[in-house]
Amino acid sequence: MSALNQCRLFAHLSAEDAEDRIAEVPHRHRSFAEGEIIAFKGDAYEELFILLKGTLSAEISDIRGRVLKVETLKAPTMVAAGIVFAERSILPVRLTATEPGTLLILPRSSLIDLAQRDSRILMGLLQDSGNRIRFLADKLRFVQMNSLEEKIAIYFTEQAEFQGRPVIELPYSIEALSELFGVTRPALSRSIGRLVDDGVLERRGRAFRIVDAEELRGRTGD
Amino acid sequence: MSALNQCRLFAHLSAEDAEDRIAEVPHRHRSFAEGEIIAFKGDAYEELFILLKGTLSAEISDIRGRVLKVETLKAPTMVAAGIVFAERSILPVRLTATEPGTLLILPRSSLIDLAQRDSRILMGLLQDSGNRIRFLADKLRFVQMNSLEEKIAIYFTEQAEFQGRPVIELPYSIEALSELFGVTRPALSRSIGRLVDDGVLERRGRAFRIVDAEELRGRTGD
Repeated sequence: MSALNQCRLFAHLSAEDAEDRIAEVPHRHRSFAEGEIIAFKGDAYEELFILLKGTLSAEISDIRGRVLKVETLKAPTMVAAGIVFAERSILPVRLTATEPGTLLILPRSSLIDLAQRDSRILMGLLQDSGNRIRFLADKLRFVQMNSLEEKIAIYFTEQAEFQGRPVIELPYSIEALSELFGVTRPALSRSIGRLVDDGVLERRGRAFRIVDAEELRGRTGD
Repeated sequence: MSALNQCRLFAHLSAEDAEDRIAEVPHRHRSFAEGEIIAFKGDAYEELFILLKGTLSAEISDIRGRVLKVETLKAPTMVAAGIVFAERSILPVRLTATEPGTLLILPRSSLIDLAQRDSRILMGLLQDSGNRIRFLADKLRFVQMNSLEEKIAIYFTEQAEFQGRPVIELPYSIEALSELFGVTRPALSRSIGRLVDDGVLERRGRAFRIVDAEELRGRTGD
């Protein structure tokens, strides 16, 4: 079982404090087996699921019934926290367990209580939503671009601009970045590798230096 | 000047209560003229702008410097509320005034204070983020579909499924729905009109009845 404070909601608390806070409000646990369907698309989602252990697959089926995986959720994480507070709290995906595990379930009223009692929990809740909005808005922009090289060129150019220097620290892991771009992780690694081989980027540990900004911009196509 | 409680943050309060709450925390007002640039893309965004009066255009420029409008913001509304709490609070758009107006500016710490003092404000803040996440996640799905007819067919079919009956109330206005689908409002109206003319949908005031679900599904292409 992972420590509770590895989950963003409790990121600003110690694991002990997080457990103490939860003990003060109504909550419950639910164990599940591999292959179990945890919730259906269209279910009311008015209680937050916190995945403490195990792995869930978030799936949709298209209009012809084909199942498409949207996202893999690994513990510890909150499941669709934004939806709990949306005006129509309806789960937009089906949740299927791909590994056995445990959920901590917090009713909406318990979340409100926790956030009011402890500003660190409030901050965790708002940060999680903020990060999610930022990620989705960025993803929406990248999904409309044509090539992976264009996505990389625009992302790295913008990061250099925001960070105010040509050596940039990627704020996401390569895995998260590949999800942002809507490509596989190996495809992203290959494409970045090609830019390094071509002398456009230089790798410096987890950071990158833009060697040839002009050439990088030239990779954006059209 | 619009009443404060028309803004989602204060939606659960009376206008008087909202003004009283704000008076209790640090805040300021800022007036702006038409054409004024309110904030640049890449600016730190750690204070919430609430647009009380006027209209802003949220714009990005592409890698070649061409300006693209992302969204029109009309008072009363919060500006990019999610970003204030994201871990990297950087404004992803430039804000330009297209009509003169006024902003109410609330530092992040004032927002936290307000949310802790009054659970109705906390609920407004969380609902706003939840609605935004839902909208962006839906938009991300629709932007990857090919035709407008496919988007309409899938949206209406899903709504009938969620609402559990063939007569559906659209949860969005036609304007919001056209933004969700990434098309113009007239194009959306025309396309819905065609489905009504073809006897696939029947209009009932603000609601629609799905007359021919089979034919509607058939419009999804491939």
